[in-house]
Amino acid sequence: MKFTCEKSNLQEAISIVQKAVTGRSPMPILEGIFIEAINNELRLIGSDIDLSIETKINANIIESGRIVVDSKIFGEIIRKLPNDEIAIETTENNSIIITCQNSIFNLIHLNADEFPSLPNIDDDMMFVIPQSTLKNMIRGTSFAIAQDETRPILTGILFEINDKMLNMVALDGYRLAIRNEYIDTENSISAVIPGKTLNEVAKVLEDTNEIANITFTTNHILFNLGVTKIISRLLEGEFIKYSSIIPQEFNLKVTVNKQKLQNGIERASLMAKEGNANLIKLDIEDESMVITSNSQLGKVREEVAINLQGTTLQIAFNSKYLLDVLKIMDEEEVVMEFSSSVSPCVVKNKEKNNCKYLVLPVRLAK
Amino acid sequence: MKFTCEKSNLQEAISIVQKAVTGRSPMPILEGIFIEAINNELRLIGSDIDLSIETKINANIIESGRIVVDSKIFGEIIRKLPNDEIAIETTENNSIIITCQNSIFNLIHLNADEFPSLPNIDDDMMFVIPQSTLKNMIRGTSFAIAQDETRPILTGILFEINDKMLNMVALDGYRLAIRNEYIDTENSISAVIPGKTLNEVAKVLEDTNEIANITFTTNHILFNLGVTKIISRLLEGEFIKYSSIIPQEFNLKVTVNKQKLQNGIERASLMAKEGNANLIKLDIEDESMVITSNSQLGKVREEVAINLQGTTLQIAFNSKYLLDVLKIMDEEEVVMEFSSSVSPCVVKNKEKNNCKYLVLPVRLAK
Repeated sequence: MKFTCEKSNLQEAISIVQKAVTGRSPMPILEGIFIEAINNELRLIGSDIDLSIETKINANIIESGRIVVDSKIFGEIIRKLPNDEIAIETTENNSIIITCQNSIFNLIHLNADEFPSLPNIDDDMMFVIPQSTLKNMIRGTSFAIAQDETRPILTGILFEINDKMLNMVALDGYRLAIRNEYIDTENSISAVIPGKTLNEVAKVLEDTNEIANITFTTNHILFNLGVTKIISRLLEGEFIKYSSIIPQEFNLKVTVNKQKLQNGIERASLMAKEGNANLIKLDIEDESMVITSNSQLGKVREEVAINLQGTTLQIAFNSKYLLDVLKIMDEEEVVMEFSSSVSPCVVKNKEKNNCKYLVLPVRLAK
Repeated sequence: MKFTCEKSNLQEAISIVQKAVTGRSPMPILEGIFIEAINNELRLIGSDIDLSIETKINANIIESGRIVVDSKIFGEIIRKLPNDEIAIETTENNSIIITCQNSIFNLIHLNADEFPSLPNIDDDMMFVIPQSTLKNMIRGTSFAIAQDETRPILTGILFEINDKMLNMVALDGYRLAIRNEYIDTENSISAVIPGKTLNEVAKVLEDTNEIANITFTTNHILFNLGVTKIISRLLEGEFIKYSSIIPQEFNLKVTVNKQKLQNGIERASLMAKEGNANLIKLDIEDESMVITSNSQLGKVREEVAINLQGTTLQIAFNSKYLLDVLKIMDEEEVVMEFSSSVSPCVVKNKEKNNCKYLVLPVRLAK
């Protein structure tokens, strides 16, 4: 194998495929990056089995071939080289020589045949979505996946397509997040993707209207971004019937400035932190919501102007769960619907109907 | 105690005095900030005994008084409050009430009488130096202080004034750093200041020509920056007679582009890292310095153009010690003087005669 390429191109490709080199796999070969030089292209793959990322860059291939090199040290070497043309070729003793200006590195490589091949994906079940939309939907749900593995299916995010609507759903027993967008497809699908791999996918997605082609098989999902392809395995099992959890009715509806509510809760949380399970109390009155919290260090009272439809209510929350939701919402005003002090609160945008969040309250001792 | 002040002023003052609240003292009261309201000024002090920082801001004092509040939670509360006027007053149960717009905090406070008073400093031994110069001198030497406490005096930086010259010196047995600047004073002094506290002092100093007044007593140094005063204790004991360590002669002198040398050594270090004590070898030849290193992962050869006066030499270093020096030097070209492969290397600026660094080589097994 022998080729030359631009340092900046190679560095960018490495940083993309490294998102899949997570160190979570027990196979040593997966700490490496697979590099194939063929047809004036360099093909790079990083993988931890659950997630594989492939990307391609232009290169001047003098002799085709393929190797696997340690992801960390190879990435560091390329990053530290001058911004110029880099030449790489294989040499004796299972090594490659990396040359750039006055720098020469000899680096051992592994056998590319030991690198697992990518799952075969046919193009059956396909739809397209702008990368920025997909990125926002992942961001808007992944915070709510379960952190423990007691119910593995809850560590994933449900992808559900029905009636030209894509719903992404995550829940962990304390809160539930739904993001939905219109999708131009006749297909229906219901699949659960590991949340951790989706977070890596989100890092590769661009904040642009560039398209992601999405294809499902029985066991995998493929995000095709053009030169970059991301393949994640699906989680096995049935997701929770989440729609039955969402309250259809409410007794009071609060409209409130998102940022002011978030600031008030953040300040109240300062007192709630100290060994107190982030407990904050909301007193919802006619024109204001009073947020209180106390600990050994002292107490706090925050007042936020609201518009209330319905009756007044006292309810308590783990402030972290409310803040997680408010932080990723982007409208100026949000709507909160409550039924009682022991029923979940539903948080929505005031304008756009593209998300719904459920947060369970904390039951206060009488 | 009762006063109002601007949030931004109070926040800045807190962030200054917090530099001295290090949690290194066993006295719980020193996790607090001392606040005194008197004569339309608020005086804040943070201290860990070794280091004390006092600063003042304008405030509208309605009732004078003094308290101590927990540095961390008080700092967080003030930081999170809206950018507006803040009112603070003491209330029953050893608490203060902090009010700002729609936020009300009750926070317990400690007894200000338990807070240690600042050491008394008379103005005997004083000289002035621009803050930015002092900041650079600290930055240019503090990396070389000893990290272990085997010889406590070496965890400090020597302040030495002789013949209108301020020398700051640090050394740890592997390298030595000297920075010097002209000082307009007739005084002489030799005192050792704890390196850790000087690093905190550097954070408070501004990158400007604003003056720092420096006063010494038997046990303390006072940095008077106007509204802010920083007092550090001195280390007891005699500093090493460093001047006898510095080689007066050399057999070869290398002039080299600082950034190119630094880049080459950084890349060579990538290979040197792997359980190899950062070992790099320099082959100093007529027009080039060849830097090599190797490990189980492979090897590297870097070549940097140099101007050599004298004979050729092979010498080895812990790359970290050379990099620490090169990173804080700011001239385009540096001069390196060598005598033999077992003698220290001296690194200096090519133009300005304001620093001198010594790095011990690593003796290679024959």
